[in-house]
Amino acid sequence: MSDPLLPGATIGILGGGQLGRMLSVAAARLGYKTCIFDPAGDCPASHVANFHLKAGYDDTEALERFAGSVDVVTFEFENIPTDALDLVERHRPIRPGREALRVSQDRLTEKTWLAGLGLVPAPFADVPDRAALDRAIAELGTPAILKTRRFGYDGKGQARIDTPADADAAWDAMRGAPAILEAFVTFEREISVIAARGLDGSVACFDPGENVHEDGILRTTTLPARIDHGRTTDAVLLAGRILTALDYVGVMGIELFVTADGLLVNEIAPRVHNSGHWTQDGTTIDQFEQHLRAVAGLPLGDGSRHCDMVMENLIGDYADRLDAILRDPNAALHLYGKAEARPGRKMGHVNRRT
Amino acid sequence: MSDPLLPGATIGILGGGQLGRMLSVAAARLGYKTCIFDPAGDCPASHVANFHLKAGYDDTEALERFAGSVDVVTFEFENIPTDALDLVERHRPIRPGREALRVSQDRLTEKTWLAGLGLVPAPFADVPDRAALDRAIAELGTPAILKTRRFGYDGKGQARIDTPADADAAWDAMRGAPAILEAFVTFEREISVIAARGLDGSVACFDPGENVHEDGILRTTTLPARIDHGRTTDAVLLAGRILTALDYVGVMGIELFVTADGLLVNEIAPRVHNSGHWTQDGTTIDQFEQHLRAVAGLPLGDGSRHCDMVMENLIGDYADRLDAILRDPNAALHLYGKAEARPGRKMGHVNRRT
Repeated sequence: MSDPLLPGATIGILGGGQLGRMLSVAAARLGYKTCIFDPAGDCPASHVANFHLKAGYDDTEALERFAGSVDVVTFEFENIPTDALDLVERHRPIRPGREALRVSQDRLTEKTWLAGLGLVPAPFADVPDRAALDRAIAELGTPAILKTRRFGYDGKGQARIDTPADADAAWDAMRGAPAILEAFVTFEREISVIAARGLDGSVACFDPGENVHEDGILRTTTLPARIDHGRTTDAVLLAGRILTALDYVGVMGIELFVTADGLLVNEIAPRVHNSGHWTQDGTTIDQFEQHLRAVAGLPLGDGSRHCDMVMENLIGDYADRLDAILRDPNAALHLYGKAEARPGRKMGHVNRRT
Repeated sequence: MSDPLLPGATIGILGGGQLGRMLSVAAARLGYKTCIFDPAGDCPASHVANFHLKAGYDDTEALERFAGSVDVVTFEFENIPTDALDLVERHRPIRPGREALRVSQDRLTEKTWLAGLGLVPAPFADVPDRAALDRAIAELGTPAILKTRRFGYDGKGQARIDTPADADAAWDAMRGAPAILEAFVTFEREISVIAARGLDGSVACFDPGENVHEDGILRTTTLPARIDHGRTTDAVLLAGRILTALDYVGVMGIELFVTADGLLVNEIAPRVHNSGHWTQDGTTIDQFEQHLRAVAGLPLGDGSRHCDMVMENLIGDYADRLDAILRDPNAALHLYGKAEARPGRKMGHVNRRT
């Protein structure tokens, strides 16, 4: 181990949603304490963390207190304000590091960076203003999808353009935010690789899962993905290049399109990822523990898959399905403790052995 | 479901040790909140529970507040003062119920009750005073083991008697507490059954595990136990009789001796049990979730075993073993967040696929 943080230490987590919640549980299993920083009072992670610092990302006093009370800092979402990160980093290491956040916080930066690494992102064009959108449509054709460069997730900040006539409405939906246009890619399937890199530079990947999205929200991840051995190797090598180029520490979710021409990189997320939730019931070391092992400087775990599996997200009101899920002998239920089941909101997930 | 408590409700847990900790994590996974009642400030369960009410079992005001803030009450140890239970039960259901606690809090009561049910406890004799000890030794022979009737665990409150000359020292070790003498049983092996009974009366058992104790403390549980199919059936039927006779709700640990003459009941514990920790990494629904499903009135889960396994307790200082455990591809590490690794103290456990 290179300078490991031993059990008993406190891991700070920026963000208190379901990812922070499941990170906190994995941290407890390894004997770590956790401190969640999140403005929301009853956030999912606060239920299971040792400490919850309820404050905004512009509260410098609270950020100082947070940094002073933890041994290392990680995060569960990538859109953390830069000033907050600057402040925290003066006191404690942030893992994964700033470069991964810089690259992944902005879709244009991310795609440009991936292309610079010799990887193939989905075709895209910069759309800083309305006039640029017309040029981008002319270049990439339709259908295409307009996305804000920053702060989009789960289909938010996106507008589909089926014909050039949709350009005005799509541009208005961006509310003046800088955007990029992405061409629709004809793909055989979407897969993702959940990859980890330790503090010592070692890399480990979970088996690629096959994803189905609806309305921009992940619905299911199925293991194994229906890809051949060569594609699996391609995916793992590609993941290794990304993590090593960023000197990355932690788990990253990498979404890929499988096309006739090879693998296209759709998106990278510098954190544990929804498409890796299957690991909780399909491996000895799940993505949450793997992330924390990396962040703490412990050796990475063995992520061998024990069984075939389908992870299904529970989105919105799931109450009428609860009894059937509980009675399914192959189903492991994971709920996030959210009080209100709003449409489109991720309330939990089910991991089913198949 | 018969009157189930739905996710979002709060489960109160009396006792904040490692069992309460792992119950809290399982409760969170099902979307429940937890409130721990424990006098100790930094107790293991407090790290992962929503609420920790730090107060003594004689603090009636705190017990009232606890009962008022939860929807149902369970516990992680059997030696809860009767007055505290009486008070809590006036406000909220306690599951498992009082009869299971009454029977299991006292070794003499427990053995007498088991015998009354037609089951076979290890041979025993009541030892209310020093003179009775001589009579008990004459009746049962030596070696034998003298145990306090109440409050013993992990080898505490026990003294071995190899010859009648050891009687004085053994009696002194009881410090005046009422005791029983137990004959040494010649057994092939020790096994335990982790059984559950739902609010609707359904019973489910995990596969029996084979236990190795040292100095009265569980060291390992190995799955499967080396017993034939008939013995497994015997064990399951026996467990069903105990749970049904007690109108039990929740998980119970039942320790058995396998002898040439059949199964002897060593001990019952009306709670999740150390010998059931393997289920965390060997089944879809582990003993902790199973207990909470029962307590909440949800359907019991399927506890099918996915793999062979050895659970090993980490007792006392384990620091020099940590790196090897983390590097073992088959090992899942579970630590309890205890600050001080005193000799004989359970600090965590390792579940190893074999």
